[in-house]
Amino acid sequence: MKLKNPVVKKLCEKYKTVSLLNHIDAILGWDLNVNLPPKGGQERGQQIAFITKQITDIFNDKDFKNLVEESKTQRNLTPEEKAILRNLHKASEYYDKVPAEIITEKSKTTSEAYMAWQKAKQDDKFGDFLPHLKKLIELDQIIAGHIGYRENPLDALLDLHEPDLTASFCKKNIVALQPGLTALIKRIQSKQKFGNVETFVNNQQNYAVDAQRQLALYVSRKMGYDLDAGRIDVSAHPFTTTPGRQDVRITNFYKEHDFRDSFSSTMHETGHALYEQNINQDYDQTPLEWGVSYGIHEALSRFWENQIGKNPHFLTFMTPLFQAFFPEQLKNTSHETFIKLFNLPKPGFIRIEADEVTYTLHIIIRFEIEDALINNKLKPKDLPEAWRAKMKKYLGVVPQTDRDGVLQDMHWAGGSFGYFPAYALGNLYASQFLHYMKKEIDVDGELEKGHLGSVLYWLNENVHKHGSRYWPDELVKVATGESLNPKYFLNYLSEKFTGIYG
Amino acid sequence: MKLKNPVVKKLCEKYKTVSLLNHIDAILGWDLNVNLPPKGGQERGQQIAFITKQITDIFNDKDFKNLVEESKTQRNLTPEEKAILRNLHKASEYYDKVPAEIITEKSKTTSEAYMAWQKAKQDDKFGDFLPHLKKLIELDQIIAGHIGYRENPLDALLDLHEPDLTASFCKKNIVALQPGLTALIKRIQSKQKFGNVETFVNNQQNYAVDAQRQLALYVSRKMGYDLDAGRIDVSAHPFTTTPGRQDVRITNFYKEHDFRDSFSSTMHETGHALYEQNINQDYDQTPLEWGVSYGIHEALSRFWENQIGKNPHFLTFMTPLFQAFFPEQLKNTSHETFIKLFNLPKPGFIRIEADEVTYTLHIIIRFEIEDALINNKLKPKDLPEAWRAKMKKYLGVVPQTDRDGVLQDMHWAGGSFGYFPAYALGNLYASQFLHYMKKEIDVDGELEKGHLGSVLYWLNENVHKHGSRYWPDELVKVATGESLNPKYFLNYLSEKFTGIYG
Repeated sequence: MKLKNPVVKKLCEKYKTVSLLNHIDAILGWDLNVNLPPKGGQERGQQIAFITKQITDIFNDKDFKNLVEESKTQRNLTPEEKAILRNLHKASEYYDKVPAEIITEKSKTTSEAYMAWQKAKQDDKFGDFLPHLKKLIELDQIIAGHIGYRENPLDALLDLHEPDLTASFCKKNIVALQPGLTALIKRIQSKQKFGNVETFVNNQQNYAVDAQRQLALYVSRKMGYDLDAGRIDVSAHPFTTTPGRQDVRITNFYKEHDFRDSFSSTMHETGHALYEQNINQDYDQTPLEWGVSYGIHEALSRFWENQIGKNPHFLTFMTPLFQAFFPEQLKNTSHETFIKLFNLPKPGFIRIEADEVTYTLHIIIRFEIEDALINNKLKPKDLPEAWRAKMKKYLGVVPQTDRDGVLQDMHWAGGSFGYFPAYALGNLYASQFLHYMKKEIDVDGELEKGHLGSVLYWLNENVHKHGSRYWPDELVKVATGESLNPKYFLNYLSEKFTGIYG
Repeated sequence: MKLKNPVVKKLCEKYKTVSLLNHIDAILGWDLNVNLPPKGGQERGQQIAFITKQITDIFNDKDFKNLVEESKTQRNLTPEEKAILRNLHKASEYYDKVPAEIITEKSKTTSEAYMAWQKAKQDDKFGDFLPHLKKLIELDQIIAGHIGYRENPLDALLDLHEPDLTASFCKKNIVALQPGLTALIKRIQSKQKFGNVETFVNNQQNYAVDAQRQLALYVSRKMGYDLDAGRIDVSAHPFTTTPGRQDVRITNFYKEHDFRDSFSSTMHETGHALYEQNINQDYDQTPLEWGVSYGIHEALSRFWENQIGKNPHFLTFMTPLFQAFFPEQLKNTSHETFIKLFNLPKPGFIRIEADEVTYTLHIIIRFEIEDALINNKLKPKDLPEAWRAKMKKYLGVVPQTDRDGVLQDMHWAGGSFGYFPAYALGNLYASQFLHYMKKEIDVDGELEKGHLGSVLYWLNENVHKHGSRYWPDELVKVATGESLNPKYFLNYLSEKFTGIYG
């Protein structure tokens, strides 16, 4: 990438340090989750806070701010230079508008809230988490006020996670899916064709962790993950992180009683990693070097996990492999059973265990609650009650405990109001990508043969390589020729589950 | 630790960032050696260089320098405040006297030299490494000139690794050991009592890596290593590092054909770790928080590896355990054989494989060569010849290749002229510690029962807890009541090997 504008050049020169600090931050966080001895937690927290502070300092540096101001009057920029400035302006706007004290206050409150949430979840005591939650909501309301918004304070928070996302967009494109999804679940359940699958799930067997690890390596390599620039480790919750442009790591968690979770997680995290590994290398150390948003990242991870990993043709290809990795447990399992095993739509309490059909309903519940909380239409103390009511309404099941209810996710404790819709958007983007991919590639035919190369090639050429060059809406247009259109998601689900359950 | 002096307080406040950066540097280096994917090397190098630069910047900061100057006129300091200032003055002196360009130049030259050395060693081509070596010697001569010295430019370099160490001290206390060591080897060899041990070593068997790992865990726990504030991993060369005061990690390397190396390495590295884990916690985040020198560190690691790990009584205690970990290979091995297996004095080519008797001779060779190189009495191009001549003279064996000769160690390639004597000093300190420990503790009796607690307690109370509170010479006096006295080392060796071989 050739930069011509001298102001952009200077900003990119300064940004190199931000890039380097972000990579150091990633390795500190990776090690925290994968290796850190129990007593090392407090010091690691200080180390991470120090690196975060250094990044903040760069954005708040006078010279940097002057360059940012100067950059706003530049003309005759290349499209890439414009994209660089757009990203930098967005990042620096946050530090510009939100007072440093508030950023520090939020960081401190979040650390305490996160610890309180872990304990409250363990003890199933929402009341112990409530004071922290109140404070976090108040802080995010203050932050939204500083950032500004046209209609809804939640817009300011959504935009932090997904550029340009608004609450009204979420209502039109995500909440609006609810009747269709509810109808689809009812239709699938009326068919009652789960057959021996329920029995199988209830007779869970012992799957050796080492064989699961080998299977994870097999499938991630097959997807095209470059293990000379990455690695697979174990952590309590699977994640992907990028300690270097040539060092993109994923983690996994192996449950002895079920091989499906680690298999799906591997495909999910490898999907994140393939995005980061295949961004145009010309963008290294510039504000274009990362995946553009949480929504697009989740689109790619969920695409591999669901659209590919739970595709009946791919599962047919995988059947002899599953049997080879777990001969004792799976030798008599047919590909029809595997297809149902990975595609069991059934309302449950837990988001991360949800199937493709009910998953988005979990997100809708969270979005509506966030909207109500941030707009003072719901009191934090009434949250457990509101949670149960919405579960009843949308999923027809009500958890007995807050641990399986409002305390299940870490996002709010982590101060991330406005994050959840990214998951639902991911589902929508993923289905739209698949729809257009199928115009060029015989996806099912390729998957039946176990060929994943053409799928990766399509993603590389149409999505991955662009990094943060385009913002999500523009990226979807570049990749598929049209803006986000939720109909592809409903069509995908309907077609897929009709195929499986009739 | 209560600090009263306001200047010391201010300096310690600033030092906290140095401490934190050192810990971040440690985790970046640990990950580099333990986990880094092959393609991640270049970026990790940049990350480490960035952290190093930040530390340099703190010492070169005007406010910091002013405080250092101001601190030199302070009166009525506590002993600990004096120790803090002594350490800070030493560290800042280096940055003060050596121009920043030279520090940068050395860092760059070292990176290149290290890579060239790795390749030259692999290809056995000293000539390919020679130009780098020349440049490193020239740079260290320049650095020595900037730092200043009374007698010998090597003094300036020795002092960087071991405070107050001089070449003349090394000659009097290390080189002077040579006749005694040579005589001892001849005496042992004349006894020819190795028996079936040579056969055993030549019939090397297969030792499962997992059993070796379990044995390493067993012995390091037994020594008192706190694994809630540490961990054991695998790397090409074993090392210890401190990414946090509550996070001191060791690594190991497991050879399938010999269980002894990983056992001895574990005890060696755990010795380093026990030092760092047991420093007075009042010293956290101050210039007293680390082990005081390479010599004292090697003293403690070599103490556990040799004085304890190769003690006949301890090996007698370990015999049924070795047999339990490797029943197939060792069930018929007697404790007499284990004692000889771990105590086989025999001149060889490689320093890190050397026994307790010949080890110091390897160091003497290196010290004399460094002395000649830095004083322009030996041309770098004549180094391989000089190496072979000294090997012949002191050890009676001559390596066929430079790979097994002058290219074997990484120290010179890493720019560490003046490091080697620390190993020999370690041997001397360790024997002196043992001598005085035995006045209070029945060490052999404790070891025969496998009790290591009283040994650790003695080290904690007399050495470990002081951190960098005393410099080596003072520390040895505090711990043993007298300055370093090499006679304890020769007595120790003579007594031990007479006991084993008669």
